[in-house]
Amino acid sequence: MQKNNNISNSVIRRLPRYYRFLGQLLKQDITKISSRELSEMMRLTASQIRQDLNCFGGFGQQGYGYNVAELRDEIAKILGIDITEKIILIGAGNLGRALTMHIDFAKYGYELAGIFDSNPAMENVEISGIKIQHTDMLEKFCTENKPTMAVLCIPRTDAKPTVEKLMSLGINAFWNFTHYDILFDFPDANVENVHLTDSLMTLSYAAKQRK
Amino acid sequence: MQKNNNISNSVIRRLPRYYRFLGQLLKQDITKISSRELSEMMRLTASQIRQDLNCFGGFGQQGYGYNVAELRDEIAKILGIDITEKIILIGAGNLGRALTMHIDFAKYGYELAGIFDSNPAMENVEISGIKIQHTDMLEKFCTENKPTMAVLCIPRTDAKPTVEKLMSLGINAFWNFTHYDILFDFPDANVENVHLTDSLMTLSYAAKQRK
Repeated sequence: MQKNNNISNSVIRRLPRYYRFLGQLLKQDITKISSRELSEMMRLTASQIRQDLNCFGGFGQQGYGYNVAELRDEIAKILGIDITEKIILIGAGNLGRALTMHIDFAKYGYELAGIFDSNPAMENVEISGIKIQHTDMLEKFCTENKPTMAVLCIPRTDAKPTVEKLMSLGINAFWNFTHYDILFDFPDANVENVHLTDSLMTLSYAAKQRK
Repeated sequence: MQKNNNISNSVIRRLPRYYRFLGQLLKQDITKISSRELSEMMRLTASQIRQDLNCFGGFGQQGYGYNVAELRDEIAKILGIDITEKIILIGAGNLGRALTMHIDFAKYGYELAGIFDSNPAMENVEISGIKIQHTDMLEKFCTENKPTMAVLCIPRTDAKPTVEKLMSLGINAFWNFTHYDILFDFPDANVENVHLTDSLMTLSYAAKQRK
């Protein structure tokens, strides 16, 4: 299947959701589904679903619907999660440690290859079978292991020099939990920001508007 | 200031970002800023910023710019984070414990009033000064303390009965870390979903497209 490089950002953002829902169907041994059924489950319109999936060349047959496993595999390929990339985590505080234990990186096409922290007291502490290394070891580690992505769970003030260093070591994709705006200084980086407190403030707004 | 109830979702989603950036300016003792300066810092256009802030009646004076502290206070009011609401956390696993320690709830208008887990082994374990209670205690606790919001860090399969119970106890806003689609069953709830692995998959797509 040809990848279409002009796919809108909003379609891309829906793909992980399709992937999740199709996985849930497979768990329930459901092997085919119509766009109408899928649309009800996902609270989208059937035409929206057909449009989304058409961006990638279209799947499904008129009158049959979609083959769940096939469609899920194709979406995995589109997302690139069928190929394993090495990712490292920087900052083994509460959040970094929780992500290490909570997220099944392997399931999403990542090998969590290393965990780093600037606090010497954390060195050699083991989380999920991986020993924390001092950030001084980053250069040696990246040269030998060639990770391409990093999770950032560090204070905002440390983020700029860290990103600068990581980019010089061949890492150009960041799962960014800091409030540092990576793209402001490094417009060529691939960045996915997770601003947890922004989300909490948005909930506050929604809840208080209803009163 | 009058609240305008027809504000678009995309404007609302930018407000926490304004709030953060203005907070950073205050920390640097910057007391006023022009829309042009703010726009460069936030990578938005100056006219976008003026439009956004006009939704709420407009701030700032021609030729002077915005008073940073005043504008930040107004945004706090709009978001409702100037008023403290009680929130409880359900599910004291890795993620729930990390959020308890990592998020400064008080800073965003929340009092983390209780932590609950269905695992009896967790009972009375203390996190950030709060003792974990068994979920059997939810009814008594909610009747006495009247929390209005909940953070959900539980398995997807437990989510529906939990939300049903919490809604019957007066909670109608959810910071949802599960993959359960609350609005599908409870369209009147206020929900803010955090799908961490969706974000990870989106990063994978972006990074692999660049290759």
